[in-house]
Amino acid sequence: MENCIFCKIIKREIPSTIVYEDEKVLAFNDIQPVAPIHVLIVPKQHIESVKKLTEKNASILMDIHLAANKIAEKLGISDKGYRLINNCGPDAGQTVLHLHYHLLGGKDLGPKII
Amino acid sequence: MENCIFCKIIKREIPSTIVYEDEKVLAFNDIQPVAPIHVLIVPKQHIESVKKLTEKNASILMDIHLAANKIAEKLGISDKGYRLINNCGPDAGQTVLHLHYHLLGGKDLGPKII
Repeated sequence: MENCIFCKIIKREIPSTIVYEDEKVLAFNDIQPVAPIHVLIVPKQHIESVKKLTEKNASILMDIHLAANKIAEKLGISDKGYRLINNCGPDAGQTVLHLHYHLLGGKDLGPKII
Repeated sequence: MENCIFCKIIKREIPSTIVYEDEKVLAFNDIQPVAPIHVLIVPKQHIESVKKLTEKNASILMDIHLAANKIAEKLGISDKGYRLINNCGPDAGQTVLHLHYHLLGGKDLGPKII
């Protein structure tokens, strides 16, 4: 997608601090982190949101989550734990219309999830 | 799992307000909701956490997310939006060791994700 900031990051047209990459997925540090570890995991294919997933393309969720586990291992938070968040649509504050998961960790994130 | 509260809910040994069910997944209202809509989506198979997902069993993520989309549609928040949260491990405050996704919506959830 021509004007999608995450597509531009995937194509290296916008710089980012990449923490993981495979054939299907790219992960990079959030530029406004809310925790010591705050990584965004995105599919290389442009999919707008979770809402746009169907049986045909939902296997990307496996790639995203298996990547999350690898990233957690790599960053040393696999045992301590991590939170995965997906925002879909305006009420959730989805700001970039390219499917992405927030991976948060590196501290006790507390019981509050909202 | 004998002492797992979500397994007991799945087996109807503990009551819950079920909002969705299919062959692989059960979804029910959180008993301590933090938003007007706060549903927990769990696989019927006992899997401890996201960390325990491998290529062999990660397809459950597709079932969970496609269920989330159907629940959002059913509850009238598909267009307004919803947030999906998974807590994995102690730093994320995972309290029940049975994989579950929080589906939140029904109001503007705000930009804060932690």
